[in-house]
Formats: sequence, structure tokens, C-alpha cells
Amino acid sequence: MLASLSADDAEWAAAERPLAALRAVSTAQVRAAVRACAELGVPVVPRGAGTGLSGGANATEGCLVLDLSRMDRVLEIDAENLVAVVQPGVVNDDLKKAVAEHGLWYPPDPASAPWSTIGGNVATNAGGLCCLKYGVTRDYVLGLKAVVGGPAGEYGTAVRLGRRTTKGVSGYDLASLFVGSEGTLGVVTEVTLRLRPARRDVPHTVVGAFDSLVAAGEAVALCTRRGLAPAALELLDRACLEAVEEWKHLGLEPEAAALLLARLDAPGQAGTEEAEAVARAFAESGARWAERSTDAVEAEALFEARRLAYPALERLGPVLTEDVCVPRSAVPAMLARTEETGRRHGVRIATIAHAGDGNLHPLLITPPGDEAARRAAQAAFEELLAQAVALGGTVTGEHGVGLLKRGGMRAELGPEVCAMQEAVKRTLDPLGLFNPGKVVGAPGS
Amino acid sequence: MLASLSADDAEWAAAERPLAALRAVSTAQVRAAVRACAELGVPVVPRGAGTGLSGGANATEGCLVLDLSRMDRVLEIDAENLVAVVQPGVVNDDLKKAVAEHGLWYPPDPASAPWSTIGGNVATNAGGLCCLKYGVTRDYVLGLKAVVGGPAGEYGTAVRLGRRTTKGVSGYDLASLFVGSEGTLGVVTEVTLRLRPARRDVPHTVVGAFDSLVAAGEAVALCTRRGLAPAALELLDRACLEAVEEWKHLGLEPEAAALLLARLDAPGQAGTEEAEAVARAFAESGARWAERSTDAVEAEALFEARRLAYPALERLGPVLTEDVCVPRSAVPAMLARTEETGRRHGVRIATIAHAGDGNLHPLLITPPGDEAARRAAQAAFEELLAQAVALGGTVTGEHGVGLLKRGGMRAELGPEVCAMQEAVKRTLDPLGLFNPGKVVGAPGS
Repeated sequence: MLASLSADDAEWAAAERPLAALRAVSTAQVRAAVRACAELGVPVVPRGAGTGLSGGANATEGCLVLDLSRMDRVLEIDAENLVAVVQPGVVNDDLKKAVAEHGLWYPPDPASAPWSTIGGNVATNAGGLCCLKYGVTRDYVLGLKAVVGGPAGEYGTAVRLGRRTTKGVSGYDLASLFVGSEGTLGVVTEVTLRLRPARRDVPHTVVGAFDSLVAAGEAVALCTRRGLAPAALELLDRACLEAVEEWKHLGLEPEAAALLLARLDAPGQAGTEEAEAVARAFAESGARWAERSTDAVEAEALFEARRLAYPALERLGPVLTEDVCVPRSAVPAMLARTEETGRRHGVRIATIAHAGDGNLHPLLITPPGDEAARRAAQAAFEELLAQAVALGGTVTGEHGVGLLKRGGMRAELGPEVCAMQEAVKRTLDPLGLFNPGKVVGAPGS
Repeated sequence: MLASLSADDAEWAAAERPLAALRAVSTAQVRAAVRACAELGVPVVPRGAGTGLSGGANATEGCLVLDLSRMDRVLEIDAENLVAVVQPGVVNDDLKKAVAEHGLWYPPDPASAPWSTIGGNVATNAGGLCCLKYGVTRDYVLGLKAVVGGPAGEYGTAVRLGRRTTKGVSGYDLASLFVGSEGTLGVVTEVTLRLRPARRDVPHTVVGAFDSLVAAGEAVALCTRRGLAPAALELLDRACLEAVEEWKHLGLEPEAAALLLARLDAPGQAGTEEAEAVARAFAESGARWAERSTDAVEAEALFEARRLAYPALERLGPVLTEDVCVPRSAVPAMLARTEETGRRHGVRIATIAHAGDGNLHPLLITPPGDEAARRAAQAAFEELLAQAVALGGTVTGEHGVGLLKRGGMRAELGPEVCAMQEAVKRTLDPLGLFNPGKVVGAPGS
């Protein structure tokens, strides 16, 4: 039991032995646990569903694992104000379903949405497919309740950060500071979220097959230049297509170098026109073929294939997941460097990308039990982080720093900004109680 | 000269005597000035155009006023990546014009856009009309260059916070922390902004006249319930209409208790349908009349009247500007309490509101030179802050805390969260050099 709560889905991130685990059911329990841990000097490692990909929820030696997955109630859906208040253990898709009954929509849609929790989404500032048009988790967090220590009072104090209104600038934006902080500043026990009205029309899907990654990258750039605003613009390279096809036989055209999938949701006729414009942009960029799917079942199958890519690749061996994000115009260059890096290190790399956002997930696959291959993959992993930074990008678009990207983050931000980050951590968590070693911790610590 | 640089547009916020002013032209100058001020113990008060309404740019005794209005270059417009990089002194409307030449759009549109600078907009997290649909300044700030002190190194160190990519979660979101911090954490000398493609269609305008503020508030609620998403939804009460009409004779229907102005920009036929749906919602909520303006000149005149409201009221005497924001559903209650408060204190209050956001600007007008009226207005001002908080709102939606809302902010956030705010300030500015006394300073200090 303890072992299953000691790690998230990150390959090769170190998980140590917890002292105990607590499945909290209330803020009061979290408060009492944090207070007791502070007295005993026991670190607190919060976790949700454990679907993280950076080791952010991995146990540290002698810690209390604070499992929040049972705090899974939607406390309020306020349709008048387009607001929902939820506990951190609510699963993303469950929230979507609950608000849909009120004609509302919670947009952030990480690929883990069927399993991952809002608390985990907040911890990593999760993105997904439709953040291209609709923003990431931080754009939907109005306020938080968090159990903290330090300047607010003794460890175990509960505070409300942020607000419930659509606008507000009353003091520093501590709610945004907590979003993406991976449990290192306190334990989030309630989240106030902004909602949108549900979309009226079924979105359009456009698919294009390309003979080269560069041509696919150019199609993405052309869409941007023409002011087209897809709700999603996803890329799967040949290695992904082959893995899905081997497994599911969907007839996906695995001989293409890359598939682009676009989803367009402008209302009414404007949506049709936008879909046609995207199909044209694909064709003009040299697509083997590009078409607007007029069949909702077929369109859903295409996005299903995208969702299947990760599990399809996991069948082939442990997968080390990159999450770099580069300026959109650098997508072709990053794709080229990824191919070259894989070749040079002898590592099989398949790439899924939120191409419209410049957010690429090169997936490094290693044969199980092959230590040399594992070392090669880790070398390639670090090199890809450095390449993203060199292209003006970041080491993590939406998965978080956790344990695996601490070195990359330091290289990206530089010593001055890292010193600011560490100072903020020390100030808000002077005992170093909350998820120690993650995000701002020294690599290898 | 020094006197003109010692205060912003906030009525009755205390401005003290600066030691000197510097019109900086480069980050290097700002760095040198901050370094020298740290050595000499001279506080640094940054300012842009001085259009602030909370006293955030007011001089403190013996400070250096650091005027950034000459750092007014648009450094880069990157159409491939929908990004602009600007100096802080660029005027909001000038940026809009510059990016429009590339088919791009920078949405945040505070009423001060013809004069206010991006640096000031960042300092207060400025909103405006179209943030209802398109978000506030923070939603457009990807990254910042700032001159800081403390953990990053000696005072005068320049750091880059945030990023240039659309997504990123590499460490705590210090860029968002600086947005809305009113120059209290460092001096922003460069801003990297997200842009959008320009809108293709001319937006539709719908206007409705109401016999009561409550009916107007219900019309706003009905639009929300029906999932309508105006790009702007503004309210002017009778006192505003009268003041504009007395001055400009626009034929505005000053006998109505309130006018609602909506702007709809869904593309193509969807925009027409949305405009008609809003007009219907107005009518069903009891509007005396409601219609979709089919005449672009007339529509522009209506929004011009909204922009004229503030100067029209200033003709009548000093104006003390509220900026409360409440949950949308509380707009009718807040309007009713505003009227009642004005009556009870004998203060003339006119209200402009970003009604769709719940962001209300009750404007308290006092006859010039009347000390008793001034005291009554200040009492009413503080009472309205408390009422907004009691309704689940905030004391400032988009103008910032500055000097005038420090007491209100403390009441809103409570001592624990204020202690966190102060700890963050002490950590990032241990000398208390940057704009001391603003935001987190004790009221009356």
C-alpha cells in the first residue's frame, strides 16, 4: 500500500521510503497532520492521482505521504457567476461532467484528464490540448484554500488566497504563485475555478499527413500567420503512428512522417470557414493529403489515436517523457534536433506535440532491463532540455519540474532567478516541510 | 517639474517631496540608479504616465522618482510567435497601433489606454472593457525584465522572469507575482507580451435603457445564464448619463436609471445572432428599449459616451474613484448599497461599471474646497470597500492598492495572508527600497 503511494508515473525519478501515508478527507485533517508533522520534523509530500510525469509526488525518506484523492467533492457550482469550488481530489473529467450538467465547461484537458485530479493539475499548472485557445490551469484558478506555515502563523494554518471575482489586484498574486508550485509551498485543500459557457457547436476536425516534420512545422506556422485560432493543433510523428497502428490497427497512415490534427470551434459558419482555411494551410505547406472530417465518429477516432499514443509507446518499454516548450517558430528546429539527438545516442524517440503551442513531448523509449540503453536515454533527455533552452524555450511546458527537471530549470533560469525562487520557498516554508527537494531543490539532493 | 512627477491621478492620496527625479532611457541607467539609491538609502518610486488612481506612483519623502515614460520603444513584434517585446514607457494605444500593422491585437484596454503605459498597466494588472472576454494584463504578460535586489544579488541586478513561450511551469511564477505589485518588488524595464490575431469583423453594439439599476443588473445575469459572451458589457447610471449629457448633448436618454452597452465580436453570422440574443435578454429583463446598433458611427459614439463619463464628472469637482469587484450576481446588491451609502452620507455618487465582470467604479464627487463634503466622501469610500468585501468581492479590480486601499486590502485578506504578502516583500526587497509604503504598507504610514 505504502509503496503504491510512494511514486508518480515518472520513469526513473527516485522514490524513497515514506514513514506513513494519510488519506485525508477534510481540511481539518490536513491541518492536524501538517501541525503534527511540523512538530515532529516529518516532511509532507502531497499527492493526488499520482499521474505526474516529473516525480513531483515521489516520497522522500521518512515523509508523510498526504493522499488527497478522497477529498473528491465538487462543493459548489455557481452558474450565475461561472464559478466552481472543488476539493483537490476531484478528477478533471468528473468536474467536466458535473459542470456540463449546468451548461458550463471547464476547459483544461491534460491527456490524463480521465484520472488526474484538479489538485494535481493545480500543482503542475497542467495544460492539455485546448489550452492553445483557452489557456492553462492557472488561467482558471481564481482562488485557493491552502494549509501553510511560516509567516501566516504556525504550521497547519489554513488561508484563502486569491478571490472569487473575475478581476482583482488586492495584493500580490499568491494564488498564481501556488499554481505550479507542486506542493512545495503548502497543501491545497480547496480550489475556486473559473468556468466558461459550454460550446454550442460540435467542433470541426482537420487532419493532414506530411512527408516531413519540417513541412508539418511550416503548416503550423502558416496557420499562425493567417490568424487562425484552432482549439487544438496536435502533431504525431511516424514513431507514434506506428506504435498506435501496431496496437490498434486504425488505418492511420503510418508511412507519413507526421500527422497534424486540428480542432476548430469558432461558432456557426465561421467554424466551417476556419476548418477549411486550416485544411488549405496544410495543403499549401505540402501535406500528402489534408481534409476536414465531416464525420464526428471519425474525428473522435483521430483524437483517440492521439490519446492512445502514450500507452501504445509504453507497451514497448519504459518511457521517459520530455515536456519542452519552444517558441512556435522553433518547432521545426526542435523536431529536427530531437531526431538527430535520438540518432546520435541510439535512442528510439517518438514525439507527440501540442504543436500550436510549441509544447513538444519527445518520448524516449528503452528496452526493459537494458542499463546501457537507460544511460543513453538519460543523456539524450538532458541534451533535449538544453536544446529547448538554446532555442528560447523552457524545460517544462505543463508537467512541472518535480525531480527530473531541476538541473534543466537551473540552466534555464540562471543563478539569480533560482536564488529568488529559493528565497520565496524559504520564506513561505521556513522549516522546509512541504515536498522538500522538489522544484527548487538541488539536483541530486 | 518635480512636483508634476510626484503624484498620480488619485484624489487625496498623500504625495510627499522627492529628493530628485530621473527620466531613465535604458535598463543600464535604471540599474545604476537603483544601485546608487541602495547605497545611499534613497527609496525608488517608479512611475509611467501617472494616470494611476490609487496613489501607487506618489512620491515618498526623500525618494528618487524614476520616470520610465521615455523608455517608450517597441523593441520587437514577432508575428510568427504572436509576441511583442516592449519597454515599460510604451503607451497602451501606441502598442495597439504598432501591432495592428502586423494584423495583430493587444486586447487589454483600460479607459486610460490613450495615455497610460504598459509599465503602469503591468504595475496595476490593468483591466478595461474587453477583459470580460479576453482577460486582463496578467493574462498577456509572458515575461519581464526587472531590476531587483535581495536574493538575486546586489541592488541593481537585472533579471528575466517568466518566459517567451505560450506555456511554461519552470519554477514559481515570479512574473505573475510582479504583475500587480505596483513597483514594490523591483523596477520593470522590459515586458514580453502575448498578442492575438486581429479580429476580422466589426463588433456589434447593443444598447439598452433601464428604469432601475436592479433591472439592468438582472439583464447582466440573464446574459451570463444564457451563455452569452460579450467582449464588453458596460453600465452607466443616471448620474453619469446626466453629466455626459450636460456637457456633450449626445441625446443619451438621461431619464433612464441606467444604460447597458454591450459589444459582441463572435465571428460572422454568430456575432449577429449573439447581438440579437443580448438585445432579447435586455428586453426580457424589462428594458425601456433595447436595440442592436447597425450604425458603426452611432455605436462608436455610445462607447465614446462611456469614455467621456469620467472627465464629465471631473468637471463637477474632485472625483474619488472606487474600483470594487463583486461576484456578477451581486452587482444589483452592490449598486443598491452604493445608492444607499451616497444618500446616507450626502455624497453624490455616479457609477460606471464593467458590469459583466462585476467590476464597479462608483465615482464620489465633492464640491471643490468643501472640507465637510470631503470627509463625508472619504467615509463613504471606506464603507463601499467594506460592502464589496461583505458581498464576497475585492476592494480593487484593476486600479491597484496603492495608498488608498491599504486598509481595505487588510480587511479583505485578513492578517494571515497580509503577513504572507509582507514576508514576500521583505524577502525580495530586504532594504524596503522599492516604492515603500505602497500595497503592503500599513495604512497611514
